[in-house]
Amino acid sequence: MLRIYGDSNSGNCLKVKWVAEKLGRPFEWVEIDIMKGESRTPEYLAINPWGQVPAVVLEDGRPLAQSNAIMLHLAEGSDLIPADAYQRAQMFEWLFWEQYSHEPTIAVARFRVRYQGQAVADLDPTLVAKGAAALKRMDDHLAGRAFLAGGALSLADIALVAYTRMADEGGFDLSLYPNVQRWIGGVERALGL
Amino acid sequence: MLRIYGDSNSGNCLKVKWVAEKLGRPFEWVEIDIMKGESRTPEYLAINPWGQVPAVVLEDGRPLAQSNAIMLHLAEGSDLIPADAYQRAQMFEWLFWEQYSHEPTIAVARFRVRYQGQAVADLDPTLVAKGAAALKRMDDHLAGRAFLAGGALSLADIALVAYTRMADEGGFDLSLYPNVQRWIGGVERALGL
Repeated sequence: MLRIYGDSNSGNCLKVKWVAEKLGRPFEWVEIDIMKGESRTPEYLAINPWGQVPAVVLEDGRPLAQSNAIMLHLAEGSDLIPADAYQRAQMFEWLFWEQYSHEPTIAVARFRVRYQGQAVADLDPTLVAKGAAALKRMDDHLAGRAFLAGGALSLADIALVAYTRMADEGGFDLSLYPNVQRWIGGVERALGL
Repeated sequence: MLRIYGDSNSGNCLKVKWVAEKLGRPFEWVEIDIMKGESRTPEYLAINPWGQVPAVVLEDGRPLAQSNAIMLHLAEGSDLIPADAYQRAQMFEWLFWEQYSHEPTIAVARFRVRYQGQAVADLDPTLVAKGAAALKRMDDHLAGRAFLAGGALSLADIALVAYTRMADEGGFDLSLYPNVQRWIGGVERALGL
């Protein structure tokens, strides 16, 4: 059976869980508490030399890391990946943007507030501004759209919703982004969250 | 004809150029000087609302952004993407890792030194440590390997070589990473650089 190593508080890990659930693929969840250093043990590094969560061990015993790479592998051939080449490329735009511009701002702000005890008012203003710009970018794009790419639920929505729905925990006011709020609701319904 | 909007000093832009060249796909290069704000003009934002380079306009007039998303689209069906599903997933591991862990350290250190005039000795020690860890991770993986994924040149190598071969400009000593040095030479030869 597919084995997912993840921290239940990590959006990156939840992405993989949601894709497996949506696809009806049976899996075993192995909880890795990153705050206790469990992603840095020799046993874990043997599975994922990057020392990050999530990682999976596939049914045939081969390991795989990087949340978006895992999602792409699990979802191959499913309707979570647009069949049209250009729409698929648009999904990839969002997946790479998520890792470069969204996670390092929205998720990092949440981490500092929720896990490191920093006050929202004390967050690095550059980080906050970049996070707000990321949410604005999504809000602009989602005007008149139900999903980010290809007109239907795709991995882009699953990747982006993970930390966006928790953005308030990092001090971001989602009511400023009504298209994002509507989209979160739609993706949550599609995933049965 | 394919039009590539890029800054010749940006590794992210060179990736796209190299893929087009390797595939023999004719293109027109439009130089965008990010230091002069040319990626923030209304004309450019109409092509790429993210305001980043590179971006392309495909032969049919449709735009696409995000360097790795563009590479994937251009290279679809070519041998720059492993045919085997697991090897393809391994290529994706490196592509996402590049945007999350490599570019924000190796390329950012170079940018601060080369374009913002910061002395190497004054670079943020955390940034330097993370960059060194990224190079070490690549060096460990490349022991006994000619390429990062799938046993042949893939988009993973093209994505990673772009800034790795310029890492010395950010103060990193590549002679500490002999497998990386050998790999850079191999990828450069494969790309005719």
